[in-house]
Amino acid sequence: MNYRMIVNILGKVLLAEVLLLLLPMSAALYYHESPLPFLYTIAPLAVLSLAMIFLFKPTHDDLFAREGFLCTGLAWILMSAFGALPFVFSGDIPNYLNAFFETVSGFTTTGASILTNPETMSRGCMFWRLFTHWIGGMGVLVLIAAVLPVSGNHYIHIMRAEVPGPTVSKLVPRARKTARILYVIYMVLTLLEIFFLLAGGLGFFDSVLHAFATAGTGGFSTRAASIAAFDSVYVEMVVSVFMLLFGCNFNLFFLMLTGEILLALKSEEFRVYLCIVAASVFAIAGNIAYQVGGFTNGLRYSFFQVATIISTTGFSSANFDNWPEFSRWILVLLMFIGGCAGSTGGGIKVSRIILLVKSYFTEIKKLVLPSRVKKVWFESRPVEAVTLRTIHVFFSLYIAIAFISVLILSLDGHDLTTNFTASVACISNVGPGLSGVGPACNYLFFSPLSKIVLIFEMLLGRLELFPMILLLSPSMWKSK
Amino acid sequence: MNYRMIVNILGKVLLAEVLLLLLPMSAALYYHESPLPFLYTIAPLAVLSLAMIFLFKPTHDDLFAREGFLCTGLAWILMSAFGALPFVFSGDIPNYLNAFFETVSGFTTTGASILTNPETMSRGCMFWRLFTHWIGGMGVLVLIAAVLPVSGNHYIHIMRAEVPGPTVSKLVPRARKTARILYVIYMVLTLLEIFFLLAGGLGFFDSVLHAFATAGTGGFSTRAASIAAFDSVYVEMVVSVFMLLFGCNFNLFFLMLTGEILLALKSEEFRVYLCIVAASVFAIAGNIAYQVGGFTNGLRYSFFQVATIISTTGFSSANFDNWPEFSRWILVLLMFIGGCAGSTGGGIKVSRIILLVKSYFTEIKKLVLPSRVKKVWFESRPVEAVTLRTIHVFFSLYIAIAFISVLILSLDGHDLTTNFTASVACISNVGPGLSGVGPACNYLFFSPLSKIVLIFEMLLGRLELFPMILLLSPSMWKSK
Repeated sequence: MNYRMIVNILGKVLLAEVLLLLLPMSAALYYHESPLPFLYTIAPLAVLSLAMIFLFKPTHDDLFAREGFLCTGLAWILMSAFGALPFVFSGDIPNYLNAFFETVSGFTTTGASILTNPETMSRGCMFWRLFTHWIGGMGVLVLIAAVLPVSGNHYIHIMRAEVPGPTVSKLVPRARKTARILYVIYMVLTLLEIFFLLAGGLGFFDSVLHAFATAGTGGFSTRAASIAAFDSVYVEMVVSVFMLLFGCNFNLFFLMLTGEILLALKSEEFRVYLCIVAASVFAIAGNIAYQVGGFTNGLRYSFFQVATIISTTGFSSANFDNWPEFSRWILVLLMFIGGCAGSTGGGIKVSRIILLVKSYFTEIKKLVLPSRVKKVWFESRPVEAVTLRTIHVFFSLYIAIAFISVLILSLDGHDLTTNFTASVACISNVGPGLSGVGPACNYLFFSPLSKIVLIFEMLLGRLELFPMILLLSPSMWKSK
Repeated sequence: MNYRMIVNILGKVLLAEVLLLLLPMSAALYYHESPLPFLYTIAPLAVLSLAMIFLFKPTHDDLFAREGFLCTGLAWILMSAFGALPFVFSGDIPNYLNAFFETVSGFTTTGASILTNPETMSRGCMFWRLFTHWIGGMGVLVLIAAVLPVSGNHYIHIMRAEVPGPTVSKLVPRARKTARILYVIYMVLTLLEIFFLLAGGLGFFDSVLHAFATAGTGGFSTRAASIAAFDSVYVEMVVSVFMLLFGCNFNLFFLMLTGEILLALKSEEFRVYLCIVAASVFAIAGNIAYQVGGFTNGLRYSFFQVATIISTTGFSSANFDNWPEFSRWILVLLMFIGGCAGSTGGGIKVSRIILLVKSYFTEIKKLVLPSRVKKVWFESRPVEAVTLRTIHVFFSLYIAIAFISVLILSLDGHDLTTNFTASVACISNVGPGLSGVGPACNYLFFSPLSKIVLIFEMLLGRLELFPMILLLSPSMWKSK
């Protein structure tokens, strides 16, 4: 195990956090608030991170897959542990566990909040709270790869652990260039959304912060009522479209930039993603029409809610917990599905769902005609057996973790719907669920044990299970 | 496709049903009830079955796996379609769909009932209702293999489709002898339970019928209050122990009979099954102690309920729907797990769960040390990759079907807990769920569409998905 290299990378992650924290501190200064909550965090963090970087110079730059996973898992925990401090120092969230919950929820782009009145939070901390979504959406390790000179080509192992999806999305041969392209697309799309929101009359603070939360498919809002607070069809439509865009595979945008628009539109995952969205929007619109005064109003609310849930953002423009059971369950299914691979969205990912369904058909065909065994094809390529196996393991492990977490949550005594949807909404990085964790509620009432379980689920979901599981695996620590 | 052979076998299945129907008809006569509901069913069924047998003599006896699946799927649908008739003719269940639901629930050993007052049913029909559990438990195709001269050694394909579990349980090389041994063990255990129930002072009718329902791990009862109606710790204990026995792999009993007791006790699946039972019993007992007046009472109720749910029988000795959320969710998890392979129980099966968990560890080890890839071992044998793949497909398909069924059930507007547990209780062949389908309730209130979905789920669960799915697969019917 290349411990020196791991500590060195972790130091760089924390240094990146120091630099990123300067932004909310500037916001605090701009709004005439005390910068101290940030300074108290930044000062020791800067010392620690520089010590880690300069005292642990790697003797060699070999990095295996398991070290990539370990590094990613630890980076996300450390980042959240320090990122929670400004909330505590400012007194906005005095309890450290709650602040840690909120920060993990931010970085993992879940958007499950323990705040009852976000409106009372200081501007600086609110900026930091929604900025964590933006940082976590694309990932801080990818950010480091984009800006710092990273030695060794093995850094791809780390990006692999942080960028979601069943296969690695190497846009260009070099990891560093891939990371840069991803971040440029990410920033341009974010700026575009800020522009559209400003054009709709939203204030500068709200526009920037909600664009951050959309870009990361996070779901925190400056308002307790979320997007519904603005009561504007225009804002809802802009946010919906951008949520769906950020739920797409970023490879598509890269293809479009390089002129291969047709190739991008031919993507199987993209098409299935759009079909799921369209089918869900119409099914829900029809189902809620009588409740919201007609099909057109139904379309307005269902389009926003479907976009927010499948992209795993978790904003709300209506209290979908009051919708009929059919619509509620569609939203639960969308929570499981999630966005596309290589997006900032969470969940199982559309591409994995496609491959699961295709493997069912192949399995049935094998039973009918065992002699004519066919390979599973995806995006015009045959899929390796090992990829399919990993996807099946991923799916059943995902379900198993969500189900077993419900068991611990249920010790608190809340109803089954609350526990079940809280577990799914956290592992899929959605945020709001149904019943006790519906869009009008928050996660404050859970016991500390339940909060720890949910924190773990959020991290598991964002890093796609394995980096977090490896941290707990004895074989990981025994091996040399 | 060997259609003549398939029709011929289906004819034999229906003839077997004719003979089996003589038993409830005798019961009707014994209790001075009209035998007409049975005669009206038996007469046309006898003519039809004999016509199928004698007009469709197979020209050759080749039978491929897909034909085995097809045959099994059709056999179970036909058997249930005709088996529902006595309920309609007697007026006990005048609505045909309800009668069909009850019969499928009987044959698949689910035990989900649409009856509000089973006490008012005629004795003959009540006998038939609980006898279907006994028939469905071991399977009518296995019965035919045991008693009729079955031509061709390909009959194993049919037994494979009817006997649950990830691998074929051939006790002895010949299918026919295996089937006979299974039925002898089944009958001896049933007789033993009748004896113990009679010894406890239960009436002859109740003893025999509840032994049928236990043996098939069905769960229908002659009483609306199920086993709780007898209010006897002795009866509860006898039924609990037999439910657990019928949830064991029958191979174990065969090993014990052949003197290999130690080998039977070494079975990995058996040990894990006992561990799950013990852990669940103690967890629930502790959790409900304050509600039922102490830990000892807690143990009494939790032992019965854990036995009835993991074996997927579905009797009740208490209204576990009123238990705390933690206990309720344990029961939901046990519904998914189900009994052992090669038992009469439903669910995913303990052996599949073991292999899923083992595959997680292997996958994690592969990430840590890719060079030292190890095989998964089970019951002292390495497991083939193809078996693991099938189990993963089975698991995710099982979850997908259960989840998508909830979507259709939710059109009725009942709460999420009702829909979710109804779906799980039917696909796992348990019977009662929580909330609206709790042990104090029944399935009468569901819409016809929902009942059809639940009927399909029960058949899917009992035949372990593939025979029913193949019936709907176009590739099945296109192939020659």
